[in-house]
Amino acid sequence: MPTRKPVFLVIGAGAGIGGHAAARFAAGGYHAALARRSDEAGLARLVSQIEEAGGSASGTLLNAAEDGSIEQLVERTERDIGPIDCALYNLGAQIGNRALQDTPHRTFELGWRLGTFGLFRLAHAMFPAMAERGKGTMLVTSATSAVRGNAGQHSHAAAMGGRRMLCQTLNAEFAPQGIHIAHVVVDGSVDAPDTLGKMLGDNFEAYKAMKGEDGVIDPAALAETYWHLSQQPRNCWTHEIDARPWTDTPWWNDNPNPQINTGGKPKD
Amino acid sequence: MPTRKPVFLVIGAGAGIGGHAAARFAAGGYHAALARRSDEAGLARLVSQIEEAGGSASGTLLNAAEDGSIEQLVERTERDIGPIDCALYNLGAQIGNRALQDTPHRTFELGWRLGTFGLFRLAHAMFPAMAERGKGTMLVTSATSAVRGNAGQHSHAAAMGGRRMLCQTLNAEFAPQGIHIAHVVVDGSVDAPDTLGKMLGDNFEAYKAMKGEDGVIDPAALAETYWHLSQQPRNCWTHEIDARPWTDTPWWNDNPNPQINTGGKPKD
Amino acid sequence: MPTRKPVFLVIGAGAGIGGHAAARFAAGGYHAALARRSDEAGLARLVSQIEEAGGSASGTLLNAAEDGSIEQLVERTERDIGPIDCALYNLGAQIGNRALQDTPHRTFELGWRLGTFGLFRLAHAMFPAMAERGKGTMLVTSATSAVRGNAGQHSHAAAMGGRRMLCQTLNAEFAPQGIHIAHVVVDGSVDAPDTLGKMLGDNFEAYKAMKGEDGVIDPAALAETYWHLSQQPRNCWTHEIDARPWTDTPWWNDNPNPQINTGGKPKD
Amino acid sequence: MPTRKPVFLVIGAGAGIGGHAAARFAAGGYHAALARRSDEAGLARLVSQIEEAGGSASGTLLNAAEDGSIEQLVERTERDIGPIDCALYNLGAQIGNRALQDTPHRTFELGWRLGTFGLFRLAHAMFPAMAERGKGTMLVTSATSAVRGNAGQHSHAAAMGGRRMLCQTLNAEFAPQGIHIAHVVVDGSVDAPDTLGKMLGDNFEAYKAMKGEDGVIDPAALAETYWHLSQQPRNCWTHEIDARPWTDTPWWNDNPNPQINTGGKPKD
Repeated sequence: MPTRKPVFLVIGAGAGIGGHAAARFAAGGYHAALARRSDEAGLARLVSQIEEAGGSASGTLLNAAEDGSIEQLVERTERDIGPIDCALYNLGAQIGNRALQDTPHRTFELGWRLGTFGLFRLAHAMFPAMAERGKGTMLVTSATSAVRGNAGQHSHAAAMGGRRMLCQTLNAEFAPQGIHIAHVVVDGSVDAPDTLGKMLGDNFEAYKAMKGEDGVIDPAALAETYWHLSQQPRNCWTHEIDARPWTDTPWWNDNPNPQINTGGKPKD
Repeated sequence: MPTRKPVFLVIGAGAGIGGHAAARFAAGGYHAALARRSDEAGLARLVSQIEEAGGSASGTLLNAAEDGSIEQLVERTERDIGPIDCALYNLGAQIGNRALQDTPHRTFELGWRLGTFGLFRLAHAMFPAMAERGKGTMLVTSATSAVRGNAGQHSHAAAMGGRRMLCQTLNAEFAPQGIHIAHVVVDGSVDAPDTLGKMLGDNFEAYKAMKGEDGVIDPAALAETYWHLSQQPRNCWTHEIDARPWTDTPWWNDNPNPQINTGGKPKD
Repeated sequence: MPTRKPVFLVIGAGAGIGGHAAARFAAGGYHAALARRSDEAGLARLVSQIEEAGGSASGTLLNAAEDGSIEQLVERTERDIGPIDCALYNLGAQIGNRALQDTPHRTFELGWRLGTFGLFRLAHAMFPAMAERGKGTMLVTSATSAVRGNAGQHSHAAAMGGRRMLCQTLNAEFAPQGIHIAHVVVDGSVDAPDTLGKMLGDNFEAYKAMKGEDGVIDPAALAETYWHLSQQPRNCWTHEIDARPWTDTPWWNDNPNPQINTGGKPKD
Repeated sequence: MPTRKPVFLVIGAGAGIGGHAAARFAAGGYHAALARRSDEAGLARLVSQIEEAGGSASGTLLNAAEDGSIEQLVERTERDIGPIDCALYNLGAQIGNRALQDTPHRTFELGWRLGTFGLFRLAHAMFPAMAERGKGTMLVTSATSAVRGNAGQHSHAAAMGGRRMLCQTLNAEFAPQGIHIAHVVVDGSVDAPDTLGKMLGDNFEAYKAMKGEDGVIDPAALAETYWHLSQQPRNCWTHEIDARPWTDTPWWNDNPNPQINTGGKPKD
């Protein structure tokens, strides 16, 4: 069922950032094409919610790590729904903190497949048509690990560091061809039941309570920022932006630690 | 004349970024309080344009380099107009490329007074009331020189490097008190008649023509991004964002230079 | 033939950085264990040169992209030669500038295998013994692409960005266990016949002539910096350092381009 | 008393980094010219120690914040001792953590005078002769605050952020003229009795004990790195390098905080 609306494609459309971005773009007049790995019922629910709100949406399951999967998704979307105006690559690769010896080769490789290679494959499949049309947007959800490697993050940081540099090379080649690429450094925890919620399980509510009022990013708020980025005219494009809750220490600051604060912190 | 609207204070309200931000915030329901160093007629024109568009605005001349000037502006604005909800520090310190020997001590010092010290003075004067109210926003127009020092930019880069680090220290202390600080790296030239226009003089139109279609930032587009930042809820604040035209090489990339491109550029 | 000398292992021991580092460490009292992918004669020549200069060295061919190869090299070296005191990961992944459509999936994957995954595998295999001994050093040759993604560098920059973040996660886990990890951003071309020389072929000499006197990094000079890093006591470790010729523009600066210089470069 | 040795000028020659650098360069064949603000006895002691070790040194008191002081020092040194081959700008501006309201205007300005402006003045006075000779080195001791602004560091971070960008602009103009500029990010506390020692007073020994074995930078070790930088040939110059003790968390990493570690630290 082709649409006359511009198409917004989300890879990684869970109930957090991906789902809220889909809803925001649908509210803004886009057809939202949602793709996620599993949970057909959850996917159908997101599509229904968008439709009930008067928007246009469709969904599909996708194993992004599989050869050809992203490529076919792009092809099917362009052919059956319409030209992709904006895509959001929203697949994470966070597996929690693991010591090096608890990070097997295959785990490290999977991090790269989802964190770096999948984004390369999406660009590879999607950019030729966008470049021909002279316009398009690719939003990339990224993480603190893209700008600094923290303890236990071997797999995640290597994948996200590659992701960030790849966004810069893609921007260098394709911005002058009309494709806007934005790398979003999400530097705080997100109220996302399908990712952080599953990782924390029964501790999710306690965690959010501990973070305090507005201490966790509302994915609807972040979706508003994604929407803004997608609407910037080409004379004023943002390539990199960060976001975090007001109470979170940014990645470049220490967590305050009164014990070792010697008045003038010696290392500042 | 006190207002019941939230107040948006702009320091550096010329016909470029400052004036367009004022217009955007006025359109969004703010009273825009404009301050600039000179050109009373130009200032009156900006205020009139906002009022003719149905907005609320007022203007004042200000020598920000003078002791007490920013402090009195904050005090008068809070007392006579209303609590400052959002302020934009929009004073630049760009003086063009100058070799070290053509950069006298007083020039370097003036760069610091406008580029770094004025921002410190604004925060010093304005944050106590904002912190007491538990809310407020300070937007800071910044430049490429805040993230890298380029040839001939001794005065500007030292001032902007200080500005960027100051924004981070202010954020560390005041974000948890409810004050949103955003450092905007404007990494391209802006269609601003009062700054770039005056610097280039008769060459301004030729310069814009050379940059091509959408090759110069439209200050109205940038104002839209400022507006977005000011509306982010506190669970999802951006501290740093960049912006440039689609055809501009970002600061971290070389200008393409085919002569020395050896296939695989050796230093990549 | 076990040695009583501390062992310096080089992966990527060509006639450039790797070979010169081996010679420098051998001169400093280490046994240099050289590994490279091909050219047995070239490898033998490097070993002989070191021995003729009175040093101790051995060599082996190694396909680092192959499963188990790095792991066996580490095992054999520790068992047959001696405990590895310092290792240099010197494999590059530069393939020259290629547009996205000229960068096949397998090319991008090979970049990651050599640029990121091989380093992970080396740390995985080598760090347990170093951590048990409470000391060791891993030097990592890196590139401009580790800190910024330039046009045409999709494969290389993604690999090097991952490499840099991985060095940071390794440092976070292993520095407190006594392992010194140093990430060296080589931000200029190196007078390396086996890599840049092969890439440029007949143009290599012309390229060096064009760069002017001292316009290309002498790998012996860089080896001296590697040596210095390896000798830093643990109270004063460097994690990141850059290096380039005096006449090279650092990665964060534009190449000077007088045509678009408008006096004050607008975007500074 | 002119010398035939190359001259090493240290501004900020206390018993920590400055004094040890002077000793290291004297041992390497330089005449060390030491300048510091106060403590004539301490200065004489440093000079004596160098001379007793067989080196050549001289000392002078200097109020670097005073107009003309640095300029006259450079002039006197060049005229009375000899051409400055290498200078170390070692003045800090750390005043401890202070809330914004406890940071008066004059404190912020003094931070800039010592942290940024003094370096500009040194370059202004010293570089013309170096450029004419086509060679020279300026080493700059810098701090964590040059790369990130931490809480309470308003004055220090603004000064150091300016310092770092200034080093980059100076490098852009003067590296191609043969002047090597190195910005050293000292990202850990230094065993420096005249600065950290005075700041911590009676708690200095307890602080060092708490940091553990090799937990504080030995200024003699750092001086060795300064020496190495000064000896790099111009085909292989380092512009930026960091240093910290093995047990210190680098500036880009969190202090470990088990309470909020949720397995996968959500914000990584």
